[in-house]
Amino acid sequence: MVDSKKDKNANPMWGGGFARPPADALAKINASVAFDKRLYRQDIAGSIAHARMLAKQKIISDADAKAIVAGLNDILKSIESGRFVFKDSLEDIHMNIEAALKDNIGAAAGKLHTARSRNDQVATAFRLYVRDALDALDAALRALQAALLKRAGEHVATLMPGFTHLQIAQPVTLGHHLLAYVEMFGRDRSRVQDVRKRLNESPLGAAALAGTSFPIDREFTAKELGFDRPMANSLDAVSDRDFALEFLSVAAICAVHLSRLAEEMVLWSSAQFSFIRFSDAWSTGSSIMPQKRNPDAAELVRGKAGRMFGNLMSLLATMKALPLAYNKDMQEDKEPLFDTAENIMLCVQAMTGMALDFTADKKRMAAAAGEAYANATDLADWLARELKMPFREAHHVAARIVKFASGKNKKLEELSLKELQSVEPKIRKDIFSVLSVENSVASRKSFGGTAPENVRKAIAAAKKRFGL
Amino acid sequence: MVDSKKDKNANPMWGGGFARPPADALAKINASVAFDKRLYRQDIAGSIAHARMLAKQKIISDADAKAIVAGLNDILKSIESGRFVFKDSLEDIHMNIEAALKDNIGAAAGKLHTARSRNDQVATAFRLYVRDALDALDAALRALQAALLKRAGEHVATLMPGFTHLQIAQPVTLGHHLLAYVEMFGRDRSRVQDVRKRLNESPLGAAALAGTSFPIDREFTAKELGFDRPMANSLDAVSDRDFALEFLSVAAICAVHLSRLAEEMVLWSSAQFSFIRFSDAWSTGSSIMPQKRNPDAAELVRGKAGRMFGNLMSLLATMKALPLAYNKDMQEDKEPLFDTAENIMLCVQAMTGMALDFTADKKRMAAAAGEAYANATDLADWLARELKMPFREAHHVAARIVKFASGKNKKLEELSLKELQSVEPKIRKDIFSVLSVENSVASRKSFGGTAPENVRKAIAAAKKRFGL
Amino acid sequence: MVDSKKDKNANPMWGGGFARPPADALAKINASVAFDKRLYRQDIAGSIAHARMLAKQKIISDADAKAIVAGLNDILKSIESGRFVFKDSLEDIHMNIEAALKDNIGAAAGKLHTARSRNDQVATAFRLYVRDALDALDAALRALQAALLKRAGEHVATLMPGFTHLQIAQPVTLGHHLLAYVEMFGRDRSRVQDVRKRLNESPLGAAALAGTSFPIDREFTAKELGFDRPMANSLDAVSDRDFALEFLSVAAICAVHLSRLAEEMVLWSSAQFSFIRFSDAWSTGSSIMPQKRNPDAAELVRGKAGRMFGNLMSLLATMKALPLAYNKDMQEDKEPLFDTAENIMLCVQAMTGMALDFTADKKRMAAAAGEAYANATDLADWLARELKMPFREAHHVAARIVKFASGKNKKLEELSLKELQSVEPKIRKDIFSVLSVENSVASRKSFGGTAPENVRKAIAAAKKRFGL
Amino acid sequence: MVDSKKDKNANPMWGGGFARPPADALAKINASVAFDKRLYRQDIAGSIAHARMLAKQKIISDADAKAIVAGLNDILKSIESGRFVFKDSLEDIHMNIEAALKDNIGAAAGKLHTARSRNDQVATAFRLYVRDALDALDAALRALQAALLKRAGEHVATLMPGFTHLQIAQPVTLGHHLLAYVEMFGRDRSRVQDVRKRLNESPLGAAALAGTSFPIDREFTAKELGFDRPMANSLDAVSDRDFALEFLSVAAICAVHLSRLAEEMVLWSSAQFSFIRFSDAWSTGSSIMPQKRNPDAAELVRGKAGRMFGNLMSLLATMKALPLAYNKDMQEDKEPLFDTAENIMLCVQAMTGMALDFTADKKRMAAAAGEAYANATDLADWLARELKMPFREAHHVAARIVKFASGKNKKLEELSLKELQSVEPKIRKDIFSVLSVENSVASRKSFGGTAPENVRKAIAAAKKRFGL
Repeated sequence: MVDSKKDKNANPMWGGGFARPPADALAKINASVAFDKRLYRQDIAGSIAHARMLAKQKIISDADAKAIVAGLNDILKSIESGRFVFKDSLEDIHMNIEAALKDNIGAAAGKLHTARSRNDQVATAFRLYVRDALDALDAALRALQAALLKRAGEHVATLMPGFTHLQIAQPVTLGHHLLAYVEMFGRDRSRVQDVRKRLNESPLGAAALAGTSFPIDREFTAKELGFDRPMANSLDAVSDRDFALEFLSVAAICAVHLSRLAEEMVLWSSAQFSFIRFSDAWSTGSSIMPQKRNPDAAELVRGKAGRMFGNLMSLLATMKALPLAYNKDMQEDKEPLFDTAENIMLCVQAMTGMALDFTADKKRMAAAAGEAYANATDLADWLARELKMPFREAHHVAARIVKFASGKNKKLEELSLKELQSVEPKIRKDIFSVLSVENSVASRKSFGGTAPENVRKAIAAAKKRFGL
Repeated sequence: MVDSKKDKNANPMWGGGFARPPADALAKINASVAFDKRLYRQDIAGSIAHARMLAKQKIISDADAKAIVAGLNDILKSIESGRFVFKDSLEDIHMNIEAALKDNIGAAAGKLHTARSRNDQVATAFRLYVRDALDALDAALRALQAALLKRAGEHVATLMPGFTHLQIAQPVTLGHHLLAYVEMFGRDRSRVQDVRKRLNESPLGAAALAGTSFPIDREFTAKELGFDRPMANSLDAVSDRDFALEFLSVAAICAVHLSRLAEEMVLWSSAQFSFIRFSDAWSTGSSIMPQKRNPDAAELVRGKAGRMFGNLMSLLATMKALPLAYNKDMQEDKEPLFDTAENIMLCVQAMTGMALDFTADKKRMAAAAGEAYANATDLADWLARELKMPFREAHHVAARIVKFASGKNKKLEELSLKELQSVEPKIRKDIFSVLSVENSVASRKSFGGTAPENVRKAIAAAKKRFGL
Repeated sequence: MVDSKKDKNANPMWGGGFARPPADALAKINASVAFDKRLYRQDIAGSIAHARMLAKQKIISDADAKAIVAGLNDILKSIESGRFVFKDSLEDIHMNIEAALKDNIGAAAGKLHTARSRNDQVATAFRLYVRDALDALDAALRALQAALLKRAGEHVATLMPGFTHLQIAQPVTLGHHLLAYVEMFGRDRSRVQDVRKRLNESPLGAAALAGTSFPIDREFTAKELGFDRPMANSLDAVSDRDFALEFLSVAAICAVHLSRLAEEMVLWSSAQFSFIRFSDAWSTGSSIMPQKRNPDAAELVRGKAGRMFGNLMSLLATMKALPLAYNKDMQEDKEPLFDTAENIMLCVQAMTGMALDFTADKKRMAAAAGEAYANATDLADWLARELKMPFREAHHVAARIVKFASGKNKKLEELSLKELQSVEPKIRKDIFSVLSVENSVASRKSFGGTAPENVRKAIAAAKKRFGL
Repeated sequence: MVDSKKDKNANPMWGGGFARPPADALAKINASVAFDKRLYRQDIAGSIAHARMLAKQKIISDADAKAIVAGLNDILKSIESGRFVFKDSLEDIHMNIEAALKDNIGAAAGKLHTARSRNDQVATAFRLYVRDALDALDAALRALQAALLKRAGEHVATLMPGFTHLQIAQPVTLGHHLLAYVEMFGRDRSRVQDVRKRLNESPLGAAALAGTSFPIDREFTAKELGFDRPMANSLDAVSDRDFALEFLSVAAICAVHLSRLAEEMVLWSSAQFSFIRFSDAWSTGSSIMPQKRNPDAAELVRGKAGRMFGNLMSLLATMKALPLAYNKDMQEDKEPLFDTAENIMLCVQAMTGMALDFTADKKRMAAAAGEAYANATDLADWLARELKMPFREAHHVAARIVKFASGKNKKLEELSLKELQSVEPKIRKDIFSVLSVENSVASRKSFGGTAPENVRKAIAAAKKRFGL
């Protein structure tokens, strides 16, 4: 049967019913291989599992399956060595590989697509990719936690001001501060693991949308690919992109944490704070200002949070209101995912580098911890505890003492007992013991508080909890 | 001690150091009671737990604690009965309640705020609120799953076209289609439960940011409030809003699912599809066009997905790059959360109502299932299976047969054997058995496929898996 | 004609074809009067214009028109005095007003809806509302510009460090810095005016979507309502929400500017910077830390940018992929718009208050301007200008001098000529003239540069350009 | 002066003060040349203008300027011919070009950077790029308007149902429907032009942030580059990215319009609607289903709206709360802009192709226009107009007639006069004249209405208004 009038450029995969090739603008907007080639490994793995299953189920012959698997492995090598030539005209990575397989092994290649569709094929490869990205992110976050714990261990008792509203609030220790981020990244990892668990079901075998009449074994391919089980509903299998949305959402929240630490690095390395300094390895200069040492990486980590939010928004909006099952809009799922996966890794790695690099100026930090009446709460607490003043009243009295001291341009601990008593006559000499920064910090022994002895325990506990 | 020059309007909570009241524009932008009064129950619960702990730890007297608890319970009743007067000048729900407590029980009220700060107080109340919202959402989604399962059970074998690209693809059953959504809402519930698990740690006792020197018992308050444990780091405790971001993200993904089903309801109830019809209870009319029956609720569910995305973006952007610990920006966490929590419930409930309400036009759906060569894949599969044609070749042959039939304005099953053989001579008479819609559907028996016997099993399995 | 079996709760506006009232969940999700009552003034204005036109065109009688107009004006007064009772059961503000009109003037009220639909009615009222919001925003931004110009005038020569990467870069003046914001808010106003111009066409008379067969005069109603002309296409008229999207987008960009200035206010009022101080009127305190003076308003302005972004995303996503013409999803246009309109006003007003309130610590700012080798560029420029060194080489030499000075813990101007010459022998004594902060600033006379004489001119020019 | 211990890998541009090269992870996160090489033309144009100005102002010699200009033109050719080798180690396009210039012309290259900084250099190149993108978009939208006007001209009187809520509302003509989009794209073009106008000021000469002490002529470079004038404030010049935000916002709104038309193309080409059909040039097939003709391009246009929203969100969030002036976060401005600029062009071009390609099934559309009681409004209008019934009452009567007809399974025009009178006795025979679809459409002659004679006029007016 010859199809003589057929245009040679008609698509080899679906061209049967088409007399003419797509318009250039259609070909251009449709082509995805420029970005979805990232899926080559996962696509090949999926095809190998599918071929083995087809043979096991006697749907294709063992010989065909062998030829297919060998051919796919050759293509894998060819791609990894950089020899493979990707063609836009073949639309996507899947057709690029299938066409190469046909060139390599001939007719048997045509049997690979039995009992499957690009819909389940793409869904499978994409899930495998996201699973790999989750595993990589988990490992990178673990390394970041380890770096922060290491630095926290060095700074268990390093004093610094704790801030609220960027105003000095109460003294804390740098170790305690870094542990807050260990918690955040710990939650991020917990989310990563939850997504992985939910993602880990196989869509392969859902075919176009309805399942297939071939006697396939979806448990087998699921197991081959490391999935926990096949997905329960074929329509859902090909139309679900929750795993991508969840990845984007988890990365966006993680990016918030990274941006907060990055902001602090920018602040702390400014001339005004001068709490930390980065080495040459983590500083950049200026094309015009010879003195500059800029914390570029921290700024980029902070800035890149924006794109993580954007990528999440992108896919949410794309998926909104799509009727079942597959719609071509869903091809737009990949670029935001790839972009976030690559950038979140860059950010976590850069942050790990910065966390290990910075030198803290302990003297300057300790001095700052004692400024701006950071011990006013200690004063109020003393009033409440020792004089049994209701806290609200203690707070008012302390505020008046701060005002008094401020008027004299003195710190609280520089006031004389007489001066203190001029505001509140019941104050006793032993109040001075709570007014030093060291004592203030050491006194905050409530669970999770900043006292160095707590921080030490918290580090040990975190190591255990996070398997570090 | 008199503070005679003090302006009476200075803030009672933090006014000690302030000679003058806030500017009107500051008071206006700062006031949150108009929306955060939703937290009254949770705030009171938190305060009661805190008061009990303070007494247990001998930080305040039993008598004071009793007075505080009784006073708070009175306020709770006053709020729930609508008698309580909220004042903007008292800024937020927390100060409104504390001021009322002082009015009710006098000086003892001032002792409640010992060893805590608004920072941990707010974080606690907000977590409790989000926990309640998660539980309500889980229950509502469960009811929606139950409704869908019920309808799926009624339509196990109801034929309809399955769509990809909104083009008729292959026949499926309505039951199978509805089950896809049961899966989606199942994943939503799984996410809800993961968030709840991660959220369920108590920030109470972190105080302003550093912990406290009072000998508090955070395990006790955690347990009182149903938390699994106290949070490990005080800075993290007051600055973390992950639970809100996660809630917004989970709701946004759920809104995607709802919007997809809503879109289908709009499509299916259009004149062109006429697959389903809503009763008067779920239809609305027009102010100008007397004949209209509009699926308003489905449209609103679809449209509200936008605001769920927006609320998520709102809080992500707000939290970005905030240095530790508390910053006032974080007051902006509540409105998007409340808005999403309320709207996602409206959506799930409306969807449940619509799911239970619609009547399916089985005849019209079955007819549509047989249109547009929906059985072309069955033809290709037969060629591959019976003639051992590589699938790619089978696909091409089938496409040519479709073209041939289309030229004759016939369905595939209306072609004669001879006509079929004019395209592919090896075709045999038994090909006709796979060309009926019923057989097509019945043949898709692969796990997760659309065959009625599968759907029946899938319903039973879903009931078990989702505890329905 | 009696409709005896009719349920009394059926909707009065579109209930003709409905035997039963909407389900509770439908009524709940559908009701919009709780928020769209903000449109009462605009809705009444639209109706009055419509009624007058109907009479002018002899479609209704003059007497009916008079009764309608009088009735509507009564309702306006009733709403503004707070006496009007809004009913959720009447769904939206438009039906609330129409029902009240019927109660007030009887049958004639039923004639008002001739030749219009809720679709064009809503579009008209909403446009008028957005137009009012644009005008209010323009005026508020103008006041903010005036405040900034006033402060710039006071600080034409106040030295401060200019920052890039939050590192001290080159000295600038505070006046110059504030003028940068005058430019930004000027662009914001320019955008506001562009939106207004594009918005200012009347949808009234488009009816449901197709126009009407009544002989209406759309030019007349357009003119009555201050529109430039009627919209050209009836389908577009009822389905267009560009004006709302544009408003949200303009406000989002404006919020970026506000957030940048807010960030600087937070930074500058921190203990580490101590560049500025807010009075009590623009500071807030802490419930636990008696010494705190928090820049809450600046933080809220910064944080609220997130919600402006979210509201924009919300409506973009809602409008995406809606087929023509009106869809109920579009009811979701109002809440994000109202929220942004109200919050952007709060932010601009708070920022104006803060801009007028802060006191600059000139001494501290000037000292900071001379730190961190902020004059290194002046050194490099001198090398390039005086020694004809290619700038790239001059930059390298200057960097080495900075390093040398830093090693000695000296400022550049504290190095001896001999020390300078140890790095670059050609350096001459007159280099010292460019190394003072004052001279550095005064030398930057290029158009738009920071030299005080430029700033003075720039203020005068800005006053003229922005009509201040 | 030898810098012997200097690491050779230290950055050539800012390495003067740095002993060691950046960490790998910093180099990786920092490098932007992979994407910002798109700016090569604009960067070279900016540098040429700058060099000419430096010579004119005698800051560099004419000979140096000539050498620089010639060298830059060589580089331009080298890039456009594909010979230029971009190096990641040189960070960005600007340093790649500067390094090549040094290789080409030696020492004189080092003089180009006199009196400028990368900050104003990047801002200039990026503005020029966005200006080009705006001009390209305007032209593409103009072509799309022309295509739609052409098709509207062919379908001035082609009947189709007008929809609200996707329910058939009233008959309209296809020409009228297409004109609605001509309006939308007209507003998009108007926005594009507004952005261009606001963008068109030159940042060049702002230097790092403060201006420069060199006697530069910013008017000259502005004019050379086609800008209307230099920007007024140097800090604003290097820190402003409004033009990028505006571009993203305009593109996002345009994407909404495209997505609406795309949605209709998907709907209309479905089997259920079958209003239009695309040729092979604009259809795609399926890998498994031989019969499929998918409207991929329309789906992609619809889906890509999501990424346009995401890109806007991305940059808004990135820019939020950045203190002045330049921050490295701002390097994140380019990728979203490039992505949107490229994708919006793809979308507009694909839509133009589809608009020109589709064939309308006039018969089927006309039939649909007469279904579902689309003429019920005509009936109500007749009652109001001829019987002077208040419209609200007319609406109720019409609804009852629809119900009556529906019960008999008849169209309105198929009811006998007697049947009509059984509901409303005053109905006269001449009512039938308004009940035909043709008459309904022809009667909607109000300005902007759907009557063919109006559509004809509207096409002529649109051609004039939009310069087509």
